Amino acid sequence: MKTRQVKVLGTGAYLPEKRVTAEDMDRRLGKPEGWVYKKSGVKVRHYAENESVSQMGAKAAFAALADAGLEAERLDCIICTNAVPEQPIPCTAALIQSEMKLGDSGIPCLDVNSTCLSFLAGLDLISYLIDAGRYDRVLLVAPEIASVGLNYSQSESAILFGDGAAAVVVGRTPAGESSGIVASRIETYGSGAALSEVRGGGSKLPSIAYEPERIADFLFDMQGEALFKKTSKLLPDFLKKLFGEGGVTLEDVALVIPHQGSAMAMRLLQRKLRIPDDKLMNIIEQHGNMIAASLPMGLHEAIRLGRLKRGDLTAVIGISAGLSLGGLLLEY
Amino acid sequence: MKTRQVKVLGTGAYLPEKRVTAEDMDRRLGKPEGWVYKKSGVKVRHYAENESVSQMGAKAAFAALADAGLEAERLDCIICTNAVPEQPIPCTAALIQSEMKLGDSGIPCLDVNSTCLSFLAGLDLISYLIDAGRYDRVLLVAPEIASVGLNYSQSESAILFGDGAAAVVVGRTPAGESSGIVASRIETYGSGAALSEVRGGGSKLPSIAYEPERIADFLFDMQGEALFKKTSKLLPDFLKKLFGEGGVTLEDVALVIPHQGSAMAMRLLQRKLRIPDDKLMNIIEQHGNMIAASLPMGLHEAIRLGRLKRGDLTAVIGISAGLSLGGLLLEY
Repeated sequence: MKTRQVKVLGTGAYLPEKRVTAEDMDRRLGKPEGWVYKKSGVKVRHYAENESVSQMGAKAAFAALADAGLEAERLDCIICTNAVPEQPIPCTAALIQSEMKLGDSGIPCLDVNSTCLSFLAGLDLISYLIDAGRYDRVLLVAPEIASVGLNYSQSESAILFGDGAAAVVVGRTPAGESSGIVASRIETYGSGAALSEVRGGGSKLPSIAYEPERIADFLFDMQGEALFKKTSKLLPDFLKKLFGEGGVTLEDVALVIPHQGSAMAMRLLQRKLRIPDDKLMNIIEQHGNMIAASLPMGLHEAIRLGRLKRGDLTAVIGISAGLSLGGLLLEY
Repeated sequence: MKTRQVKVLGTGAYLPEKRVTAEDMDRRLGKPEGWVYKKSGVKVRHYAENESVSQMGAKAAFAALADAGLEAERLDCIICTNAVPEQPIPCTAALIQSEMKLGDSGIPCLDVNSTCLSFLAGLDLISYLIDAGRYDRVLLVAPEIASVGLNYSQSESAILFGDGAAAVVVGRTPAGESSGIVASRIETYGSGAALSEVRGGGSKLPSIAYEPERIADFLFDMQGEALFKKTSKLLPDFLKKLFGEGGVTLEDVALVIPHQGSAMAMRLLQRKLRIPDDKLMNIIEQHGNMIAASLPMGLHEAIRLGRLKRGDLTAVIGISAGLSLGGLLLEY
């Protein structure tokens, strides 16, 4: 695979004000103190109140633009890479564009969706357009409000999630620099689609069919154990292929940025890849699983904290509903 | 712009059994006979019953694969390019993959959404990956069930839509052939987002907030006149740029395939581009506006009817909620 000439120009994040601690969740779910933290590894997460994903996305986007030293007007494409749209029509990227006061700019907007892997899939796709010279300053933005879709009677999944937004500005690597995407890979196994889903709210079971008695159909439903089992089987071969395509080994990687699905999912990845603690970006304790915002948030935090430096190779890896596995080897 | 080496290998379509005529709609809406046809230009449309978009999409996909002479197992990417997902999680492409009995194949799946322009945006994106050699046999599938989201008290919009699915298989142009994408362009004006929308059913106004009194928030809402006005202003400059980037004029184009938004929207495009009737693909009479399925359905019908032949240049052009304008110049 030829390295795609793509450089991360800036990253940004936004977290809603309201903090919900593990103890808050213990009380909400009627569990003994310590239960939520032990089960989830999440100490605190944020919940949005009276704000929309487009508002949250615009805030993260402006932070990323400031980090890149770029005026919003100079963007030439905006991609929303989240899992659940703000509203069914139009695409969320157009709403973010409008929220950014770019509503008359003509900057092309579209959404790319692969649930928790949306950011990875969006970056993977757009990197080819940047490499080919079609676009040069692209905003990828992933705002999520997981909290409206949680099923508190399924505590195993409800305790995992938090809200938030992260954004990344990417452009073509300047001549003489070495940033780029070395390899990327996505595999989807639709046979596992029902292991992690929200059944109601699309065309199959429309919102207007909602009745309080069937609320569970309209909330997140996860079969954690089956998901873990299926993933464990698929992951080793997937990782082997990803690293093989990149012609690199874990030794070459400075930092693995995993999707923060759950503490258990990250331990699985860590074991399968034999990743030492200092090479693993773990932000679940302070954020929970932020659906598609987790991967760009991990990247943002890694850069902000100095754990990923220019020239470093990072492996962005995740598992999402679908069921999909995704990986991307990026020289930052 | 360098021509991207992409070839349409096969197309397919699927229409639900139930036919709803203009006269059926006259009666449903309490209008005098002839009103619906005169207002919409739609003689008959199809409505899905007891079937899902993934089932419809799989049927269109198999038809496209048969047309391409390709086994489903040989696909290396599946992209769902529709406007409204089957369910909020996971992405619809994974559900289609499963419906196609490819659930254990690992074929990567993702959704690309730009409402009515989703197919155009998806083809635009993936053409770079095909040109670069990442994927070689990609299924784009656009199944839509518009009928569950219509507001029959807003007759102006309700009379326009129909359900259906279309699919296109694309691959790399073989050496010595000239198929390819000559130019493509998308412009989004989020300031027009509220002119064509479904507000409820995403994270902002979740399904679980649905109450019968606010049903209008969960159904399609269009401000036709304002949309027409805004589009009329933007279209001429957009088309000039699109054709300029391709270095071609309408003279070079064998057939314009417009999004079948409404008879009025197509007359506007026809007038602005001065398209003679025999160069315009108009399928609205038999299908209505099938949201994102309209563009690939137009392409499918154009090929099936012999109106687009190998070597011909076609201009695929549309306007979508967002508000977005999209155009793609394709040598078939």
